[in-house]
Amino acid sequence: MIHSIVATIKVKAGQEAQFEAVARKLVAAVNANESGCLLYTINRGDDPQTYVFMERYRDEDAVKAHRATEHFRTCGNAMGAHMDGAPVVLRMKELA
Amino acid sequence: MIHSIVATIKVKAGQEAQFEAVARKLVAAVNANESGCLLYTINRGDDPQTYVFMERYRDEDAVKAHRATEHFRTCGNAMGAHMDGAPVVLRMKELA
Repeated sequence: MIHSIVATIKVKAGQEAQFEAVARKLVAAVNANESGCLLYTINRGDDPQTYVFMERYRDEDAVKAHRATEHFRTCGNAMGAHMDGAPVVLRMKELA
Repeated sequence: MIHSIVATIKVKAGQEAQFEAVARKLVAAVNANESGCLLYTINRGDDPQTYVFMERYRDEDAVKAHRATEHFRTCGNAMGAHMDGAPVVLRMKELA
């Protein structure tokens, strides 16, 4: 069963470029290294300072593998410094 | 530029099956008819009665074309009857 995640992040005003640089690096690393990840994108919301990761994984093991990667931990820490509060993470199962 | 949409919907308790039936019909119609739509999925959140449409479109025109379809209007109306409040819709541009 495909697992999906939507992670919404507010970034501190003035730190958008720094945040985007790390987010792009993370997207590239995921796409280059995680065969169980079907989609991993970073999106800029129409609302100011709002960013969203859209993620799809082949199964639950692929989600676990993602969270255990070095790039997820390194980039996650680097992005955290630019966030205004904690991310809001929606975890889901794809129905169709 | 790819446009992405995340639409989060709360469904009235006990009406999940009815909602899911229409949502699946909409997903099938979009995938069969909209070449400008790159991804259109319905997901059940881990939180009760929470559903999310994850959507990606080739460009802004494809978003407009989607909203003008007969299946979007018909299924949208049918799903509305099962919703607990208005959907929360995030509109975004994909960066990577």
